[in-house]
Amino acid sequence: MKNRRYVLVQHTDRAPIADCVEWRTETVAQPGPGEVLTRTLLLSVDPANRGWMSSNPPSYMKGVAIGEAVRAISIDEVVKSNDPEFAAGDIVEAMSGWQDYAVAPGHALRKIEPRGDLALELSLYGLSGLTAYIGLMDIGRPKPGETLFVSAAAGSVGTIVGQLGKAGGCRVVGSAGSDAKCRWLVEELGFDAAINYKDGPMRKRLREACPAGIDIYFDNTGGDALQSAVLLGNERARIVSCGLVSRWTAENPDQGIKGIPGLIAMKSMLMQGFIVFDNLHRRNEAFGLLSRLVADGRLEVRDDIVEGLENAPKALTGLFAGENMGKRILKVAERSAS
Amino acid sequence: MKNRRYVLVQHTDRAPIADCVEWRTETVAQPGPGEVLTRTLLLSVDPANRGWMSSNPPSYMKGVAIGEAVRAISIDEVVKSNDPEFAAGDIVEAMSGWQDYAVAPGHALRKIEPRGDLALELSLYGLSGLTAYIGLMDIGRPKPGETLFVSAAAGSVGTIVGQLGKAGGCRVVGSAGSDAKCRWLVEELGFDAAINYKDGPMRKRLREACPAGIDIYFDNTGGDALQSAVLLGNERARIVSCGLVSRWTAENPDQGIKGIPGLIAMKSMLMQGFIVFDNLHRRNEAFGLLSRLVADGRLEVRDDIVEGLENAPKALTGLFAGENMGKRILKVAERSAS
Repeated sequence: MKNRRYVLVQHTDRAPIADCVEWRTETVAQPGPGEVLTRTLLLSVDPANRGWMSSNPPSYMKGVAIGEAVRAISIDEVVKSNDPEFAAGDIVEAMSGWQDYAVAPGHALRKIEPRGDLALELSLYGLSGLTAYIGLMDIGRPKPGETLFVSAAAGSVGTIVGQLGKAGGCRVVGSAGSDAKCRWLVEELGFDAAINYKDGPMRKRLREACPAGIDIYFDNTGGDALQSAVLLGNERARIVSCGLVSRWTAENPDQGIKGIPGLIAMKSMLMQGFIVFDNLHRRNEAFGLLSRLVADGRLEVRDDIVEGLENAPKALTGLFAGENMGKRILKVAERSAS
Repeated sequence: MKNRRYVLVQHTDRAPIADCVEWRTETVAQPGPGEVLTRTLLLSVDPANRGWMSSNPPSYMKGVAIGEAVRAISIDEVVKSNDPEFAAGDIVEAMSGWQDYAVAPGHALRKIEPRGDLALELSLYGLSGLTAYIGLMDIGRPKPGETLFVSAAAGSVGTIVGQLGKAGGCRVVGSAGSDAKCRWLVEELGFDAAINYKDGPMRKRLREACPAGIDIYFDNTGGDALQSAVLLGNERARIVSCGLVSRWTAENPDQGIKGIPGLIAMKSMLMQGFIVFDNLHRRNEAFGLLSRLVADGRLEVRDDIVEGLENAPKALTGLFAGENMGKRILKVAERSAS
């Protein structure tokens, strides 16, 4: 039994990662006392995967060391367990990273009773769903009749945010990077309007799409979308600082946003970030609500599946290039017949 | 009876205002039905006075029209009343502006029972006290042991914010524009440290003064102080966007702050503005607490009095130049012997 894996060989602070990882085939490790050997079925492809490769990683989690597998959230099947809480065949959420097999202490795994398609455990019932729910409900606090603008609206979090906003009675406007995505948002997901940011500066089109201004901006990108939202924000507008996809590949990622702090103060606006890992204890609250909306036909999820562990770097690079519609997931292996 | 007044003759978006106002002496108007004639005793000198002179005034209140007296909050004495709620000799809070006499509808006045020195009604028991209380308590939410940094700390709001923070058990660091102000903050008002921002870029000295990072930043200035606070902010830090004195006179007032939105998202920080006029109904809550702290000897106020209506433009310009220690107030007339 061989373990195929991508290990980190060089830290990086930029989007291109091909030179920073190396494909290796090694012997599968055996679990020690209290440990569990798992086989990777699905890998979550997230902007954070790249952040963890940085030499200066975000403060909430330590970075990946040289020689370790690239870190990613996974859905695994238990192969062999030395922890009485787990048995072979169990499905677990883990942090196995870009490899076929991983060994982890039992306390680092979370047993899952799949609600349907296993991929949903990484999208709607994973960090994407929790991020959308916490950011929109706790910071955005939507009220019926308000205008919600969400950037990277066709992405894993944006699709859920927009549909949650619609379910809550908001006018919802999204931005995305292709006409096909914009059509999908409006025609399939029920957005009121969508803007292709590649058609040029956003402010004028956003003003047209938001005739009553912006009450909530769910920021997945920073950059031009944030700048426009600050300018078009209404009094007491809330800006949910969630991601900054635009910055990873930007020429000058530190360029400031005009009107901060002036317009924040003048318009009594709020801008707030949040760490989704602070909110893991609220999964039941979030996923209970999301699953009710799915059952009611008010929330639709599309997962963007890429096949094969060997394609992991390409899948991540493509995420920053905006290839995905919905949550990007790497499919590594099928679940064993049980 | 003549009414001396400064009227606006030209809108402005910058700090120098001498060319924008004209000194006139006119006949005192007589109050119509329901109206009240008042005599100005004290005028509040605030950054907002300049904002209201703008051709593009803040959205919460309309700007001053050409030919109107420059707007300012005042403490007045009632001269003649056609509103049964008021009688000659009453002390009222009004918006009489830069003139000796004003006529206003009774509903625009608020009768005051002075708690002591009349000037306190424009500082601790006026918008400065309410601004400090609402911003720090609602947005800053101080906890004992946290580090609070406040800019323009020797100003009307900053002095109250810092002392409120000390009373709440915080380590309090202020920035100000002279060594004399810094000494006053530490030796008289009990700040733990104070930084003279004119001694050069703030970040290194702020880091030394805040060894445990910054949990709350009360932003009265924007600019370098905000930039430093964003960089030194701890996880879940709160930034109270209150003022932007540094920007009025800045060469490039729209220069952005680096690390927004990146550090806001990564460190789960909050940045929020507020409109003090939304909180007028909370005066009793705020002033009750502030007066208890004064009675306990935990809060000390110094008002910065400038004498003479004719000196109004100089008093306002001096505010932007950082002349004042504590709340700047223009004394126009003595209360009548009653």
